[in-house]
Amino acid sequence: MNVEYINPFISSTVKALTTMCSLKPERGRPYLRSASTPTKSDISGTIGVAGEATGSVTVNFPQEVAIKMVENMLGIQVDEINEDVKDAVGEIANMVAGGAKGELAEKGYGFKIALPVVCVGKSHYTAYPKDVPCVVIPFTLPEGEFTVEIALKINGK
Amino acid sequence: MNVEYINPFISSTVKALTTMCSLKPERGRPYLRSASTPTKSDISGTIGVAGEATGSVTVNFPQEVAIKMVENMLGIQVDEINEDVKDAVGEIANMVAGGAKGELAEKGYGFKIALPVVCVGKSHYTAYPKDVPCVVIPFTLPEGEFTVEIALKINGK
Repeated sequence: MNVEYINPFISSTVKALTTMCSLKPERGRPYLRSASTPTKSDISGTIGVAGEATGSVTVNFPQEVAIKMVENMLGIQVDEINEDVKDAVGEIANMVAGGAKGELAEKGYGFKIALPVVCVGKSHYTAYPKDVPCVVIPFTLPEGEFTVEIALKINGK
Repeated sequence: MNVEYINPFISSTVKALTTMCSLKPERGRPYLRSASTPTKSDISGTIGVAGEATGSVTVNFPQEVAIKMVENMLGIQVDEINEDVKDAVGEIANMVAGGAKGELAEKGYGFKIALPVVCVGKSHYTAYPKDVPCVVIPFTLPEGEFTVEIALKINGK
């Protein structure tokens, strides 16, 4: 598996969190996810991508991390997953996929991006088609961990 | 809001359930979803679409309906949301979006489709960006109800 397309997503994730929420996530070591070890989260944001690379990019947050992000963004106290939190998670998914797009087009993995779909539910998880490898990038913040999942099929490669 | 793009999704949903699961869903009246009345489900399948129409198509199932579909497909008893159920929900999302694609291209709503993302979690729900209208199409089967959500932005229209 060629994972040269992973780095642009790491940069765009760090940039999204820094720019939007003044938080500097530390990244862990990316790994290939197996179907039996899904990443559980309380709120996730997914962007579909289609083109030379086709699949999806998902950001997965525990509730407390998502809330902290929005508190930092808006400078107010947030007690639960409200509209602001959902909007922020969708926007972060958008920035992660959109930010990586230009760099990936230069490497020959051009794609168009869809609009974010935010999924809310205590300990939910995502699953992908069997033939689509999913790389998980773990990130750490003082408030907890979150992950970015990149499930892409590179057409013709 | 122009909803002439809804009918192809209704036909493709009925066709997907009939072909794959020998089930004939009866459709209810489509409605515009507001952020405050999300559709809760136990397993959902989302396909991102990008092009002249950009956004997503999501199929939402209660556990018992998803299980019944797979029992019909495979002719075996299924007790929980297992790999077969996740695969089936992803494939149905794919057939719903892919089946509508050709007809929509003729109407000027051409798009590419991403790969399915299946979300599993008791009573989870999806949310979309504020400026993206979401049309919900309810369907009924003897085993229960399910919905198809179409959250699309038509570029330049």
